[in-house]
Amino acid sequence: MSTIANLTFFPLDKGEELVEHVAEVVKVIQDSGLPFILGPMSTVIEGEYDEVMAVTRDCFLTLQKQCRRVYMTLAIDYRESDSPRMDNKVNDVKKRLEKK
Amino acid sequence: MSTIANLTFFPLDKGEELVEHVAEVVKVIQDSGLPFILGPMSTVIEGEYDEVMAVTRDCFLTLQKQCRRVYMTLAIDYRESDSPRMDNKVNDVKKRLEKK
Amino acid sequence: MSTIANLTFFPLDKGEELVEHVAEVVKVIQDSGLPFILGPMSTVIEGEYDEVMAVTRDCFLTLQKQCRRVYMTLAIDYRESDSPRMDNKVNDVKKRLEKK
Amino acid sequence: MSTIANLTFFPLDKGEELVEHVAEVVKVIQDSGLPFILGPMSTVIEGEYDEVMAVTRDCFLTLQKQCRRVYMTLAIDYRESDSPRMDNKVNDVKKRLEKK
Repeated sequence: MSTIANLTFFPLDKGEELVEHVAEVVKVIQDSGLPFILGPMSTVIEGEYDEVMAVTRDCFLTLQKQCRRVYMTLAIDYRESDSPRMDNKVNDVKKRLEKK
Repeated sequence: MSTIANLTFFPLDKGEELVEHVAEVVKVIQDSGLPFILGPMSTVIEGEYDEVMAVTRDCFLTLQKQCRRVYMTLAIDYRESDSPRMDNKVNDVKKRLEKK
Repeated sequence: MSTIANLTFFPLDKGEELVEHVAEVVKVIQDSGLPFILGPMSTVIEGEYDEVMAVTRDCFLTLQKQCRRVYMTLAIDYRESDSPRMDNKVNDVKKRLEKK
Repeated sequence: MSTIANLTFFPLDKGEELVEHVAEVVKVIQDSGLPFILGPMSTVIEGEYDEVMAVTRDCFLTLQKQCRRVYMTLAIDYRESDSPRMDNKVNDVKKRLEKK
């Protein structure tokens, strides 16, 4: 569980209403079984690098079948770790905030 | 409330433990009064374009005072709207997911 | 000249042909007088933080007038420096590559 | 040649001098044989989706061996196409700029 990824996918040829396509991408992420957090600008997932990239590829293939043009952004924070980090990162910041 | 921003800030000259600096940035965002969601990879804020950019500048100046090198990423989704969109975006995707 | 920015702008409500809108954004950057490099995925500009953000705002306002929905990404590398860094960063990498 | 990727890689545990690690990543990209453009904020590469992702993985593994923490950003513009698009995207914008 060393890789946390911030993932955004949307078509560029389907107009400004993106929710249906975003939901299809999030469905793929949900079906992967990896822990994820759905946000208003992106979905964050956690796993090993190859697991995260396999899900990313499934998301891409899902949109590629339906769209002529697709935009994707991915940011990865990799850190040596045997335990999950996604929730801890947020909690650690919150703890510091309480002291400020 | 037309601009939603996905914001990431961290120093590049302070080593791999970033939580203290991230907490200072989130403190600036919290003090701004704009609605925000703290996530493991970024903080999402909502407001008008100039409001969002004023907070971003305050975050930058906070880190600039302490760090020789700073990395920042910002993604913006602007849409004509009189009402808040941040929560609705997530809820709209969840509603679609339930039907799949 | 301490801030290098990687800037991407495109409308989400104008279909998949984006070149006309991208050219308008690059025109704004060109007219700003700041040094820039036009690339296939983004435009890189260099200046002080407030200079870079002023140009970014002009780009945003240009698209906002014409589009109902706009997506923007910005990555910033700030480093204490009195001299330009944009060209040096590329040259430094090239010098290392030659030795490998 | 349907996928253009904007790729950034750097360690978070090696201090602010990143050029040596960036050069190693660019060496991996160069050795892949895919067309690429080295820029001050990122490297742009072009290929099919799986080709681009294979190179990205090689870059990641190279840094992972040396670093405890690695940050990566990737933006992808996929478009149905049988011919290379990377140079054309820049030339198309330049042509429009000349008319403005």
